[in-house]
Amino acid sequence: MPLQPIRFFYDLLNQSSRALYIFLESSKIPFEAVSISVLKGEHLTGEYRDKVTRFKKVPALTDHNLQLSESVAMFRHLIRENIIPEHWYPRKNFGRSRIDEFLEWRQRNLGLASTDYFQQKWLVPYLQKRQPNESAVNMAEKQLNHTLNEFEQLFLHSKGFMIGDNISYADLLAICEIDQPKYIGFNPFIHRPKLDRWYKTVRDELGTYYKEVTHEFDNKLRTAEKSHKEAISLKQ
Amino acid sequence: MPLQPIRFFYDLLNQSSRALYIFLESSKIPFEAVSISVLKGEHLTGEYRDKVTRFKKVPALTDHNLQLSESVAMFRHLIRENIIPEHWYPRKNFGRSRIDEFLEWRQRNLGLASTDYFQQKWLVPYLQKRQPNESAVNMAEKQLNHTLNEFEQLFLHSKGFMIGDNISYADLLAICEIDQPKYIGFNPFIHRPKLDRWYKTVRDELGTYYKEVTHEFDNKLRTAEKSHKEAISLKQ
Repeated sequence: MPLQPIRFFYDLLNQSSRALYIFLESSKIPFEAVSISVLKGEHLTGEYRDKVTRFKKVPALTDHNLQLSESVAMFRHLIRENIIPEHWYPRKNFGRSRIDEFLEWRQRNLGLASTDYFQQKWLVPYLQKRQPNESAVNMAEKQLNHTLNEFEQLFLHSKGFMIGDNISYADLLAICEIDQPKYIGFNPFIHRPKLDRWYKTVRDELGTYYKEVTHEFDNKLRTAEKSHKEAISLKQ
Repeated sequence: MPLQPIRFFYDLLNQSSRALYIFLESSKIPFEAVSISVLKGEHLTGEYRDKVTRFKKVPALTDHNLQLSESVAMFRHLIRENIIPEHWYPRKNFGRSRIDEFLEWRQRNLGLASTDYFQQKWLVPYLQKRQPNESAVNMAEKQLNHTLNEFEQLFLHSKGFMIGDNISYADLLAICEIDQPKYIGFNPFIHRPKLDRWYKTVRDELGTYYKEVTHEFDNKLRTAEKSHKEAISLKQ
C-alpha cells in the first residue's frame, strides 16, 4: 500500500482543532489540511458526513481505511503511527499516566465548561441571529469560573508546565480550551496568578505555530461578529 | 526498589470501579483491593483524601510513588505497566484508535447520562433522605434514552463486540455504564434489539468475574434501599 498522507478536517473556531493543528505542524507530521466551516454547516453535509465521520463534528481525520473522530483519540492515533518528539507525551516518571489523568478530567470539566460558555455567549446567538440569553451566559460563566479554579488547583504548579519542565499535549490542549472563552471577552486570569504565569509560559514556548493559528481564530471570530451585527441590525 | 503491588481504591456502586475491578481480576494483575464507601463519605476524608487522590472520587490507584485517578487513565497505566491479554486493547486494524474514540465519546455522553440518572433517581435521594425529584429524574431519563440511541447507532453492529470478534475494554466499560441505570429499575432494551443482543454477548463472555462483581453491586443497592426506606418512614 502506498504511503498516504493523513487527511485532517478541522475548523480553527474549535479548540480541539487548533490543538491538533498546532501539534501536527510542530511535530512535522505530513498531512493534508481540509478546512470545514461549522458556521456554514459543512460538518453536517456532503462528503464530510458520508465519508469522513459519523459524528457530525470537527475535528476528524482519515488514515488509510480508518475514519477517526474525537480529538484525543486522534492525538493518540498520531502518537502511535508516527515518530513524535517525546516531550508531547513522555514516558519518563509516569508522564503518560499523568497526562492521561488530565485528558480524562478535561472532558467532563474544562472542555464542557469552555464549550458551553462559547456556545451560549457566541455560537448560538450567531446561528440564531439574536442577542445572547443573559441568564444562560451567567450560568455558563459561573461554571467556567468554578472549573478554572479547579484546573489551577489540581493541575498547575508554581513554575514550569503541567507535568514538569517540558511542554506536553496537556498544556497545548488546555491553552486552546482557555482561549475559547478568552477570545470572546472573558478574562480567565483575575485572582488566578498561577494560571496567568502558566498561560504565558505555554504561549511563549509554542511560539509561531500557536501565534499563527490563534491569529486565524481571532480573524474568524471578528469576521463573523461583523456579519452577526449586520444581521441583527437588519432584523431591528 | 522491591516490586510493590498496585493498591486499588474502589466502590462497587460506581461503574468505573466495577469495570476496573473486573479488568484487574480477569487480567491476573496483582493488586491490593481497598474498598471505599462513597455512601459513608469515605472518599472525602482521612488517608484517602490526604495520600491517595486529590480528586475526592473513586476509583483511584497508587503504584510506587504515583497517585492516579480517572478510571480510563488508570486503565491505560495498567496496560503500559503490565502484560495484558491483547484483546482488551488490540493493536490490530487500528483497534486501539477505535476503542479510544469510544472512550472519549463516553465521557461526554454515556458516562454523563448514566451518572446523572443514577444520581437523580437513587444517590441524591439516599444521601438527602428524601424521595427523588420527579422532574429531575424525567429529564435525566430523556437524556439517557437519547444517549443510548446514539450509542447503539454509533458503536454497535449486528453481531459480535464493539470492535470485532473479541471483547475489549470498550465493551467492559460500556456494560458497566449501562448497568448503572439498569440495576435501579431502568430498562435499556426497549426498542433496542442491537443493544439487547450485544449486552447478552458481553455479559456471557465476561462470565464469573462480571457475575460476582455485579451481584455485589446489586447487594449494596438493596441494602442501602432498605435503610433508605426506614429513614424516610421515620421522617414521616
